[in-house]
Formats: sequence, C-alpha cells, structure tokens
Amino acid sequence: MEFHYRAIGVVHSCFKEKFGIPRQAGLVPDAQGTLELFEPFNRKAYLEGLEGFSHIWLQYVFHAAAMAANKSKVRPPRLGGNRRLGVFGTRSNFRPNPIGLSLVTLEGIAYDGGAHLKLKGIDLLDQTPVLDIKPYIPYADCRPEADGGFARERPKAVLQVRFAVRVRATLHAMPYPERRHLVRLLVQVIQLDPRPAYYGDQPQKQAFGMHLGDWNARWQLDGVVATVIQLEPRPGGPIFRDIA
Amino acid sequence: MEFHYRAIGVVHSCFKEKFGIPRQAGLVPDAQGTLELFEPFNRKAYLEGLEGFSHIWLQYVFHAAAMAANKSKVRPPRLGGNRRLGVFGTRSNFRPNPIGLSLVTLEGIAYDGGAHLKLKGIDLLDQTPVLDIKPYIPYADCRPEADGGFARERPKAVLQVRFAVRVRATLHAMPYPERRHLVRLLVQVIQLDPRPAYYGDQPQKQAFGMHLGDWNARWQLDGVVATVIQLEPRPGGPIFRDIA
Repeated sequence: MEFHYRAIGVVHSCFKEKFGIPRQAGLVPDAQGTLELFEPFNRKAYLEGLEGFSHIWLQYVFHAAAMAANKSKVRPPRLGGNRRLGVFGTRSNFRPNPIGLSLVTLEGIAYDGGAHLKLKGIDLLDQTPVLDIKPYIPYADCRPEADGGFARERPKAVLQVRFAVRVRATLHAMPYPERRHLVRLLVQVIQLDPRPAYYGDQPQKQAFGMHLGDWNARWQLDGVVATVIQLEPRPGGPIFRDIA
Repeated sequence: MEFHYRAIGVVHSCFKEKFGIPRQAGLVPDAQGTLELFEPFNRKAYLEGLEGFSHIWLQYVFHAAAMAANKSKVRPPRLGGNRRLGVFGTRSNFRPNPIGLSLVTLEGIAYDGGAHLKLKGIDLLDQTPVLDIKPYIPYADCRPEADGGFARERPKAVLQVRFAVRVRATLHAMPYPERRHLVRLLVQVIQLDPRPAYYGDQPQKQAFGMHLGDWNARWQLDGVVATVIQLEPRPGGPIFRDIA
C-alpha cells in the first residue's frame, strides 16, 4: 500500500543546517520561523479558526534525512549515542517513512497576498516541506500522566554561554529587539550543547560553528563554558548592517 | 513536490464503521485495538525501547475519507455542524493530505511470530493503514498552557446509558471480564452521543445502531436517556456465544 502526499507549504527556519537543531520542538522557545503556504492552501478559507489556537502540530517531511528504510535501529543522542534502539522507539528523523511531527507555537498568521504562519519554538530545518497543520487540543494531546520512557527528563542546559568582547560590540551595534532576540536564541541553542554525542570523550577545548538565522556564530568550549567568539552576518543577512 | 509513503502496518479496531468513533483519541478509554505491523517492521529490532513509553503517537491514513482536496472548509460537529471553519483549523478527516494523528495508550507489544501493539483509547477505524509510530514525550508534547480555541472543553457525557432487560440477560451470560469491558465501552461511546450534529433538531425518540467490536448494538433515545435495546454478536463474533 503506497500513499501520495504533496507539500501544502514550506518552512523558512532560523536553522539553516542540521547542526544546532534542538532535539524536540519547544526546547528553544526563541527559535523562529514561518510556514509559507502554497496555492490554494494560502487562502484564508483554509485557515479560519486556526488563529484561536496558541499551538499547532506540523506533520512534515524529513527532507534532509537519507532514506534508511533498511535500518531498524538508531542511536538516540539522548542516550549518549552509544545505545541502539528501535527506530519506532525514538523520534529519530531516519525512519522508514520520513514523516516528522512537531508541536510549535503559533504567533500569528500574516495574509500578505498569500499566507504565512509565524512560528516559535521550532525544531525544523530550513526548507522543510509541510504536509499538514492541525490545532493542538490540550484535553486530548496533553497527558501529564504519560511515562516518557528513556526521555522522561527535559534536556537541561549543560553549558554556560558567554560572549567575547568583540562579539558584544557587534551585538551592541544592533537595534534592541534584534539584539535581545539573537542573544536569547544563541544562549538557548548553545546551552543545550548541540555537539553530537560522540564528542563526549573528546578534548574540551574546541570551537564549533553554525548558521543561525542571518548569522554565522562560532563558539569556543572550555569545560562547561561556551564563549561565543565570532558573530558575522551571512550573505543576504540582516539589513541594518548595511545601513550602519 | 510529491512524497510517497507505504503502510508499516494496519489497525484492527473495535470501530468497524465511522459512526460512533469518538471525536478525539482518549475520549473512550476502553476503545481497544491492535496495530499489526508488516514485514520487516514487525521485527523486535524496530520496536526496542518503545515498551518504556505508556503512550504513543500514530500517524496514519484517513483511508475512508473521500479525497476532498478542493474543499477549504468543514463543519466541525463540535460547533453543532452549523459553522464552517478552515480545514487546517480543525482535526477533520477531510483534509488536503488525508493524514491522521492520534495519541493512544500502549498496553503492550505481543511478539507472536510478527508483532502486534495492543492499544487503548483509540479513535481509529478498522483497517486504518499506519505510516509511523512515535513515542509520546511529555516534556515536549504536554502543554497545559495551550489555548484550545473552539475545542477548549473536553466533550462531556450528555446521555445517560441504560440497558434493557433482555440486553442485561445477554450481558450476564458473558464471562465477567468481557462483560465489564463491553458495558464500559458501550457506556463510554453512547454517553458522548455519537449522532451527527444535524440530528440536534430532530424528534428525540429514535433508535440508533452501530457495530462495536464483535457486537451489533442498538439503542433508543428518549430525551437524555439512551437505552440499549439490542445486543447481538456479529458473524465471526465472540466465541463464548457458540460454547454457551
């Protein structure tokens, strides 16, 4: 039995690469994106009523996951990457059917010719094709009594995030709302230690970098302290840099 | 952009027809079913770790929903069937991409040559093709602060369920565990008043019937009292009837 689905829209995300994407939606509240709906689904008629919900489910395509239909097991980063579990026992994106499921905050809907849903708390890679939107219904979807198996505990912040002097200068040159957002986003992403689990045994003095929104960020690890040592706009990045 | 998925398994449900299926998973806790996994996904390797979770998400195909790609609006029964909302503002099964999402209780996994997941609290039609299984992760999926829009309130029991004398006789002839289960299931389904919303203005003295598990049930409405007046085994139904 085969089933065919088409994308109803595409996500524009602050996460431009897999590295740094939090393990679940909601872990980085300031992670923003928009869902751009395609014709005809960008007509208001399709969305009426959705604006009354604060949270929505997205069902989408893990478009960057290599098809791994023959793989029955994965190594969840949660377990340090050294224990293999059945793929259906995890939320891994390497699944027989690469369909994702994320609960995100709906900040608003912009009707600007088409329709863009403003999202927060995302864990979605840029350009993710979306198959469906469903409202989050707390009485049905929120089950505090559920046993979360090996993922019972919310991942904790394990790193302290600091900013090097030259990075602070870059930040202070930014308008306040953008600065506040970017600082929060950097702290929220880096403090969860986005390194793959297999780095656990490596020497601690290492630098890591990622694309985050309109920026390239680079940080240096020293024990549990992560210092952001570089922050540069990406090509086509923030406009106020050109104005300044 | 088109995406192709195949069924990893199929649901065997107590709900043999659409009528009577609760509006959301979890509303009828005693609604049982099994998910039969297909080769090769019925190998233990695919499921290892899942047994530690009490609840799971199923992503599945609304196989009995007519494709309604051109319909942008639906009439949620929740709103009495007289208000139209955008399909993405609802959980209607008439969706541009007919993909369902249900949170169900995982009672256990039976490895019997293949693999069967025992489920409770389902809202799934018999023979539903399943695309994916994901563990329910409370810290990510349970958001008590969320605003449930037009579906804020959990649907209430609106009917009192009684059993006619001859139905009670049938029930008392059953072994206790089956009797208890069937009584609970009938009460939980009927008390939510599964009639389509457009019956609201109709005369109240009407009989309704449905297939439920191995049984045909029929009840008579009189105001807010629903009396089960008929309970017959279906062909291929419960074995103990043949023994008695």
